[in-house]
This record gives sequence, structure tokens and C-alpha cells, in this order.
Amino acid sequence: MDSPYLSRLARGIEPYVPGEQPTSDGLIKLNTNENPYPPSPRVEEALRGRAARLRLYPEIDARTLREIIARREGLSPEQVFVGNGSDEVLSFCFPAFFDPEEPVRFPAVTYSFYRVYAKLFGIPYEEVPMLPGFAVDVQAMTAGRGGAILPNPNAPTSLELPLAVIEDMARAQREKGRVLVVDEAYVAFGQEPSAATLVPRYDNLLVTRTLSKAHALAGLRVGYALGQRGLIEGLLRVKDSFNSYPVDSLAIAAAAAALQDEDYFRLRRDQVVRTRDFFRQGLLERGFAVLPSSANFVFARPNFCPGRELFAALRRRNVLVRRWDAPGIEEYLRISIGTQEEMEKVLAILDEIRASSV
Amino acid sequence: MDSPYLSRLARGIEPYVPGEQPTSDGLIKLNTNENPYPPSPRVEEALRGRAARLRLYPEIDARTLREIIARREGLSPEQVFVGNGSDEVLSFCFPAFFDPEEPVRFPAVTYSFYRVYAKLFGIPYEEVPMLPGFAVDVQAMTAGRGGAILPNPNAPTSLELPLAVIEDMARAQREKGRVLVVDEAYVAFGQEPSAATLVPRYDNLLVTRTLSKAHALAGLRVGYALGQRGLIEGLLRVKDSFNSYPVDSLAIAAAAAALQDEDYFRLRRDQVVRTRDFFRQGLLERGFAVLPSSANFVFARPNFCPGRELFAALRRRNVLVRRWDAPGIEEYLRISIGTQEEMEKVLAILDEIRASSV
Repeated sequence: MDSPYLSRLARGIEPYVPGEQPTSDGLIKLNTNENPYPPSPRVEEALRGRAARLRLYPEIDARTLREIIARREGLSPEQVFVGNGSDEVLSFCFPAFFDPEEPVRFPAVTYSFYRVYAKLFGIPYEEVPMLPGFAVDVQAMTAGRGGAILPNPNAPTSLELPLAVIEDMARAQREKGRVLVVDEAYVAFGQEPSAATLVPRYDNLLVTRTLSKAHALAGLRVGYALGQRGLIEGLLRVKDSFNSYPVDSLAIAAAAAALQDEDYFRLRRDQVVRTRDFFRQGLLERGFAVLPSSANFVFARPNFCPGRELFAALRRRNVLVRRWDAPGIEEYLRISIGTQEEMEKVLAILDEIRASSV
Repeated sequence: MDSPYLSRLARGIEPYVPGEQPTSDGLIKLNTNENPYPPSPRVEEALRGRAARLRLYPEIDARTLREIIARREGLSPEQVFVGNGSDEVLSFCFPAFFDPEEPVRFPAVTYSFYRVYAKLFGIPYEEVPMLPGFAVDVQAMTAGRGGAILPNPNAPTSLELPLAVIEDMARAQREKGRVLVVDEAYVAFGQEPSAATLVPRYDNLLVTRTLSKAHALAGLRVGYALGQRGLIEGLLRVKDSFNSYPVDSLAIAAAAAALQDEDYFRLRRDQVVRTRDFFRQGLLERGFAVLPSSANFVFARPNFCPGRELFAALRRRNVLVRRWDAPGIEEYLRISIGTQEEMEKVLAILDEIRASSV
């Protein structure tokens, strides 16, 4: 029973539930889209000798890190906002850009945290039904009165919209004076250019990123947003109403080091993409329905047993993947891409399960 | 001019303004109550070799760190919540415990972030006027219908309420079914026992702490709350509506290391307290009005020139302190306690300023 001291809001909350973080080492952990490779070796170097300076508060507004990001994107530091993971950045978008009388729109099958942010900040929302094959209904996305937010590539579907379509959405939103947020957590694994290239032309477009996936820094919690100054100012006001320094000094240093090692970033990204394509092919050959993936995971439906059973059978064999009991996707598993060796092992385990279930 | 894309809330926000973080090294920086000493040497050790594991998300709910804090306080891990600085923990208290039809009360002279949190989350508030000498009006603090929050020791006054008075407030709040939040950022520097000792007997009492001050980890952003399970559950729900892992893996490891080095903690705390008492005496001898301090700063009013002028004169001599242009405290400076050497230098500089202003 709830404590009588909780606010009505806290009583009514249904929080987001992240994938488990088990501590046992025997698992093949493919449930939270982590990178199977360590971050750039420059990260370890960047952390060395930092402890003594921790007595001081972090740099205000993480200027160093914003400059590095800005340079990488061909933008100015004033067009960059950094936060404690892209979750924090995304959550700030709701009070910064959306008003309580205009529902914000997002796809019905998408990152389930959007719904939770909307509830926390009292913003109504409309979930836009998917078109066949889990395609985003881009017309419907911008047909409302309010803001719109979507991941591209989308999660958990792994499908990517072309940049031209994102631009159409940004234009449609701008015509009615509303914001479009494009959550690019997985953009590094896709084929399309980033929507960041549209930022100079669309003052209503905000693009968010994370260092958790392609940069292998999930444990560090650093995310950022790219947008014109007016939008960045909105995020700064929310941040400064909440926590003056959400990004700590170690996170600033480590993120800066990782972002400056482009060669390493590309090397690892390419490895993950190659293994993903190999693994997806393996699933198709085994009769799975698998959406084309532009991410570091695949979204796949077995044809030999229900999704729930396959999830459990994998779990028993120490393979942890993600699955939701939600209408329309309950037969699907979202499987993160591990190392080549891990994914070969998973295919072998799938053969075992399939053989034993026939 | 504001971007037309900002929400009404974002347009109306007046953010908290933290003390400057200048990068030049020649300054005596006494403006943000940082610890003049580095954190425990165990922090550097704890960070070593951690980079590779950063590819994984942090431990869910920072269990390791919560266990260490619980042991230190004689509580259970379920009675501990950790966040990204006590600012984040304090901000979560507003949506977790306070409702929009009941104003929350806090002292009129106090941490100015409370007002900002209340506005962000749409909670009305009443600022309780101070009694003579900046005493907290404890009766008035609990005379409203809603929750109450105050720092003890208070900031920027540095005054501490006895534990028995905190208990009276907790009881008064419990009688009407409302929460009392005691923000113990500076408790290590005071004489009174922590209100954490009351947690087992008051299910409506939440005590917050930070590692930024006494543990010299301002750059790390770790804070925590102590309370019975029902209250901790409220904070967890807000956290899980916002950011699954606000405390990163490095912060968990470094905070755990610092909290386990009690000898070092006491050594540095005692040094700061000795220097504070020395410096306060020095100010009194120079004709300042100085409140008795239970914190790692003093709140002092010069008798030889206006507060604003002294602030500027110190700044010109590379001494950075804090001052607010707020009614009732505009003549006061809040001066953080640095090393003994730094504070001796500040006294000498004050003598210079005084001589030149006569």
C-alpha cells in the first residue's frame, strides 16, 4: 500500500521499467542495447588523476564538452545542450516545449519512456498508430496541434526514416509553430545522415543523442541535444530549475575523450553493423520475421513458438533479450547485437531450442 | 526574446543561479562552499580500471552505494535513495510529496533552489519570515496545511536548530499527515546529531545529504535521502519517470570509496571546523557581525562599508565570495572556509581593504 505521504502524482505514476542489469557474469546480455566492446582507450586515460579536482563543482554548462560536440557537428556550442544521459535530455523536452492543452504525438510503438515523461510533467499525449510493418505514420505524426517526438531509427522496431521525411515533418511542425524532437540514440548504426544537418534551417527541430550506444558509455550517463539557440535556451531553463550541474566532471572528461576518438568509434560501429547483418541473415534463414535494422539490435518474431516461450527458453540458456507484453509486439523479441562470437553462439542456441520444440 | 517554441512554463522560469566557477587558478575561491581539501585518496584508486565496464549501464538503483550508506546510518538499503547530487534528490521531493493545492513552507532566508523547484513542478509555496537574528520560525514552519522543507544547518545563515526542535517539527507535520524534509548538506560541520536518527520513529521525515561538501566530491554529483520505505518509494517513482540511472557507475564507485574512509572524512572535517572558528574570530575582532556557524562557511556583515562594496573589493583582490541582492541579507557576505593559509590571507586582505576605506 502506498504511503499516505505521497502526492497524488506520485501515487498515480507508472514508472518506466528498464531492462534488468544482472550481476552474474555467465550471461549473454542482449537486453539493453549496450555496446559489446569497451569504449575508446582514451577514456581510461582521461579519467586518470582526476580525483583531486573532484572537490570543485563541475564546469558550468559543461562548456568543454559542448565545444567538442559542436565542432563534430559543424554547429556552435550555443546550439548544444548536454545532460545526464539522453533520458534526462528527453525528459527536459516535455516541460520546455510542450503545453498542457496540446497533446504531444509519438508513435504507438516506440521508446516507452515518452509516455512516462508526459505523465510526470502533466502533458497530454496521442499515440499515433503504426502503419503495416511497423512503419511510422509520418502524416499523422504532424497532424495534431502540438509537438511531436520520435526516435529515428525507431526503437524497438529498428526501422529508419529517410532524412527527407524527417525534413517534411520538421517543416509541417514549423508551419504550425511547434517543435519536432528527433531522438537519435541509434543514428550511428543507420544509413541515413543525421537530422542534425537540418538544424541550421529549422528553428523548431531538436535532435538528441546519447553516448550510451555507439560510444559504449552507457555506464557514464551522457546525452546531448542539438538545436538552434532558442530551443537550447528552453532546455537550459529547465535544467537550471532542477540541477545546476547534471553532468559531473568525470563524465565531461570521459565523454570528451570518447568523442574525439573518431577512428575507434567507426571501427567499433562497423563491427557491430557487420555482426548485426550476419545475425539478421541467420534469423531469416531460421524462419524468423525480422525487420530491416538500422540500429544495434534486431526486432524479430519466431515462427516455431510464441515470443514469450522463446524469451523464456533463451533465459534458461543464459541469453537475456528484451520482450514486451504489449498488444501488437508481444510475439517479438528485441535482441541487442553482441560480439560476433556471442551472436554465433545465440544462433546455435536458437537451433537447439528449435530442435527441442519441434 | 524567447523562442516562440518554448512552453509557457519555460517562458516563465526564473532559474537558480549557482556561484561562478571561474577557471583562472590565481583566485581564492570561497563562493560555493567547496571543500578546500581533495577527497579521500581511495577515490582515485576506486576509479582506476573502470573505463572498460562503462559499456554497461550502471547498477539499477545503485544498490552497492545504498548498502554502504545504510550501514553508516544504521538503516536498511530500502531506507536510502541516491541521486545525481542532493539538488536532484531535493527537486524530486516536490513532485513526490507535495500537492498543488497545499503550499509547501520553507524559511524566507534559505537555499534559493527550493522556490525554483516549486515553480518547475507547479507547487505553491509560502516563505516563512525569519525571526530576529535570522532564526527559523519553527512554529510557523509547521502551521500550514502542506509539507515543509528546510536545511539544517540553514544556508546561507549557517545557523543550526537542535535535534529536539527538528523532532518537534516532524511530530507537528506528522499530526497533520504531511512530510518534513530536512536538507543536511552541512550537517557534518555542526554540533547536533543528524535527524537521520529520527527516521525509524517518523514515517513522514526525509533527510537529504550530499557528498559535495564534507566528502569533497562536488564535481561528482552524488546526494542521497534517508527515510522510511514509503517515502523512498515516492522518490523512486519520480526517478523512474525521469531517468532510470541518474547516478553513473564512476559516481557510485567513487562515492562508495569516500564514504568508507571515515578517518579521512573526520580529519578533513575537523580541519575545516578549526579554520572556520579561527576565521570567524578574526572577523569578529575586525568588527564584523558574524552569525555562529555550524557549516563550512560564515555569514558576515562588515561594519566599515556596504556589503556590495566589500564583495567588489575582495573580487578585485582575487577573493571570490557570495552575496545576494535580496532584502534583509544584502549587507552580508557568505564566505566559504578554505585552507587555514587561505583564510589567514583573506584576513590580511580584509585589513588592507579596511585601511584603504577609512
